[in-house]
Amino acid sequence: MSENEAESGAVRLAGIDDSESIARLLHDFNVEYGDPSPEPHVLARRIRALLASGDSIAILGGEEPDGVAFLRFRPGLFTAGSECYLAELYVVPPRRRHGLGRALMEAAIDHARRMGAETMDLGTSENDVAARHLYESLTFINREGGPGGPVMYVYERNL
Amino acid sequence: MSENEAESGAVRLAGIDDSESIARLLHDFNVEYGDPSPEPHVLARRIRALLASGDSIAILGGEEPDGVAFLRFRPGLFTAGSECYLAELYVVPPRRRHGLGRALMEAAIDHARRMGAETMDLGTSENDVAARHLYESLTFINREGGPGGPVMYVYERNL
Repeated sequence: MSENEAESGAVRLAGIDDSESIARLLHDFNVEYGDPSPEPHVLARRIRALLASGDSIAILGGEEPDGVAFLRFRPGLFTAGSECYLAELYVVPPRRRHGLGRALMEAAIDHARRMGAETMDLGTSENDVAARHLYESLTFINREGGPGGPVMYVYERNL
Repeated sequence: MSENEAESGAVRLAGIDDSESIARLLHDFNVEYGDPSPEPHVLARRIRALLASGDSIAILGGEEPDGVAFLRFRPGLFTAGSECYLAELYVVPPRRRHGLGRALMEAAIDHARRMGAETMDLGTSENDVAARHLYESLTFINREGGPGGPVMYVYERNL
């Protein structure tokens, strides 16, 4: 057990029966950041289907649970293995700065590898300094072609 | 027919039998930018499977064809419809600056809507000025919460 795990409590791969807990955390995430969110019971139904189909996995951490990493998988285009997209990473406010986010990410990387993923990508805001520091400490990079390359932006729109 | 379409030649939704043409274009894309690429026949086999499964669609444009937009779909987590990820957009060098990229993107948005997508996202480098101008002219935004918000970065790593 690493020091972070000892501080943060166990992290574990979620089962389908954790869908309600995952939905509650992701709903709270949206509410905290002022983003629109489906009601938890709607979100739980979608999460149940995503976990059951093999599209997604979730990692939970802490006792309530207190944090979640939600991962989507798609077959690789340029790689034989799959591509993993970190859709969401959330830790409830009172449990932040104690290593739970890092423990979730370390478990997410480990489980993504076991699922056959060869890459992991994510989008984050320049203002999410703590998250960016965590990702960078885990060798994620936001520059094309390596350190010193141009930064890579997420662009998005509604359809 | 818009002026761009008149200049650029027709764009169309690719069929499964276009997999070799799509693979050639995406292979040339990787080679042009110095990125590793599977051989075209390997890429064609993957593309065929992605198109057949409904995971992906491709838009082709020009006579050879000369350009491609490659789109991935995943069930929505926070939206009832699906999420569309623009994985690749490429136009061969001699056909650039004549509106083919715009025609491909307009068709991509149209087909993504028809497939039930509610959002489209993509990653691009700060140095891809022409592509960024195109995306911004189509109301894509790389800032969280609207103009003036913090920029959103892509982070990625190999596993």
